[in-house]
Amino acid sequence: MNRDVTTGPAIVPGSTFGSVFAGLKPHMGALDEFLREQISAFEPEIREMADYCIDTSGKRIRPALVFLSGWQPDGQPPRNLVRAAAVVELVHLATLVHDDIMDEADLRRNRETAARKYGPAAAVLLGDALFSHALHLAAQFPTTEVCETVSESTRKVCAGEIVQTMRRGSTRVSREDYWRIIDLKTAELFRVSCFLGARLSGAADAYVQAVATFGRHLGIAYQIYDDLADFYGDEQRIGKTLGTDLASGKLTLPLLVLLEKLPAAERLALSEEICGQRAGQMALRLRQMAENGVFDAVESAVEREIEAAEAALASWAAEAPTSLLRQLSEVLRAQLGALQKRS
Amino acid sequence: MNRDVTTGPAIVPGSTFGSVFAGLKPHMGALDEFLREQISAFEPEIREMADYCIDTSGKRIRPALVFLSGWQPDGQPPRNLVRAAAVVELVHLATLVHDDIMDEADLRRNRETAARKYGPAAAVLLGDALFSHALHLAAQFPTTEVCETVSESTRKVCAGEIVQTMRRGSTRVSREDYWRIIDLKTAELFRVSCFLGARLSGAADAYVQAVATFGRHLGIAYQIYDDLADFYGDEQRIGKTLGTDLASGKLTLPLLVLLEKLPAAERLALSEEICGQRAGQMALRLRQMAENGVFDAVESAVEREIEAAEAALASWAAEAPTSLLRQLSEVLRAQLGALQKRS
Repeated sequence: MNRDVTTGPAIVPGSTFGSVFAGLKPHMGALDEFLREQISAFEPEIREMADYCIDTSGKRIRPALVFLSGWQPDGQPPRNLVRAAAVVELVHLATLVHDDIMDEADLRRNRETAARKYGPAAAVLLGDALFSHALHLAAQFPTTEVCETVSESTRKVCAGEIVQTMRRGSTRVSREDYWRIIDLKTAELFRVSCFLGARLSGAADAYVQAVATFGRHLGIAYQIYDDLADFYGDEQRIGKTLGTDLASGKLTLPLLVLLEKLPAAERLALSEEICGQRAGQMALRLRQMAENGVFDAVESAVEREIEAAEAALASWAAEAPTSLLRQLSEVLRAQLGALQKRS
Repeated sequence: MNRDVTTGPAIVPGSTFGSVFAGLKPHMGALDEFLREQISAFEPEIREMADYCIDTSGKRIRPALVFLSGWQPDGQPPRNLVRAAAVVELVHLATLVHDDIMDEADLRRNRETAARKYGPAAAVLLGDALFSHALHLAAQFPTTEVCETVSESTRKVCAGEIVQTMRRGSTRVSREDYWRIIDLKTAELFRVSCFLGARLSGAADAYVQAVATFGRHLGIAYQIYDDLADFYGDEQRIGKTLGTDLASGKLTLPLLVLLEKLPAAERLALSEEICGQRAGQMALRLRQMAENGVFDAVESAVEREIEAAEAALASWAAEAPTSLLRQLSEVLRAQLGALQKRS
């Protein structure tokens, strides 16, 4: 298992989290081709719709985790990892289709959401069809392990989203609740992506577990980063509207921290904004976040999770994926730093 | 494979399609227990919601098909069939949860729908969680076959529902379109239920295929019957509102036949009702159905599908499930006859 650590792909300078490694180009190309091939598996009547949903413009973070966690010395994408990457990406795309119905979002990645284009009813079913096909691909492996792992993960992702949905517009969300929600809704699929990559490439059980733990903490770190980017991001670059969490009453960590730091009267006003009793005052809240060091507090939380992720790999420096995954966590650090420049 | 055909359970006089055999009591009891055990597999936060959705008051047609298709001489429910029955029932329950969101239905089986009780957003996710758990159970079999079969079927069910959804409020639905829709949305899961029952009990391939074909035609027959019952059924007994297909612009066979038989002016008026341009005139349309022999025409279509189902088993009289499945098709005939008494 002592693979040559120098065989990893070179990092792309200034890259974003999803397109981090130039060496992943053949992998992502193979994934694109594989996903395009899947369209013909859908019933003719829904192929065009499936094609629309299986768009290839996403960040592909989960597939990247699969490929890096199962990195091969020849730098080529093995067929089983391509299939596993397609499974996790399709599950992710299915959840996005359903998310956009609930959020009544019109745009994602600068184009119409499926819910907007085909109506919410068709979008519910289209998400179901994508998810079914993901599980169908998972059933193409020699054993039931991929199906078992992915179906359980998906249930957890849904559970996390349900808890988040039920808490919307409520300020009765503790930090513990927040961590639980993002652990389920985001970190679980990051964890499974890493697990499958390492597992399918024949890594030893203990290393598979270490890589999975890395994935889980990286997923938590990424979601906190993403929640922070909802306040400090660049609308043009990320292709979505900012401040949506405040507007939709989703109590993410930046708002949780701000609530803790505000004096009582202001805390009440912000609570009312979260509960939808008054319009969210985005500009005011951003200024208060700056005045109260919210960015730093949230950044520290991200950093702690990145450190936990890296600690999971501490005893495994000789394994090929280790250095690649650590570079990935460095990229997240760099992205966080870039956000801060805007604050 | 020549099992003793006399070992089948006795039919319950006046029984409905789902609770047809007294001999299925231990099977349904085992299924209830198995489904109740599953609640603890869901994340604690969503257990109560999952419990609400996994209700045990349904007709259990698909589980009955699994058990009958894999009938064992000792009349006891084998563990693997109980699990397979749970898988198809959970898939079915998940689709009901999603259907009720799209139909904006408040009641099902005389109680609040999940969409009404928890809101549409949570219901989308809850359906997803049920479906994920179904696939998770499917992954507990020794091979990937159940996962593969069930995930593909589910995609077909969704495809059928998507086509139906996209055609709502349109009169551009041919008989061919109608058959295609119900083949996908209903017959496919009937087919798979029969397939799994026979397959998991070790039947020969040719018999498995015959039983699956029986299931498919029975499913088409059942859906046409169900669409007919939307006009001639008993609201109290079936626990749902009648005339919903006309009200929601769903062009089912009774309406298709009526459209064909009406004179041009009346056809235009009915088309406008289907397209939602004017309110559906249920009483008038029922009278016109009676005057134009719509019931008989639709009944003939059901009968032809029942005959096709029975024909699939014609060469397999000696197999234990054959006589049981044929009795099931007789029950559907009897239910159809009972509907007619109301017409």
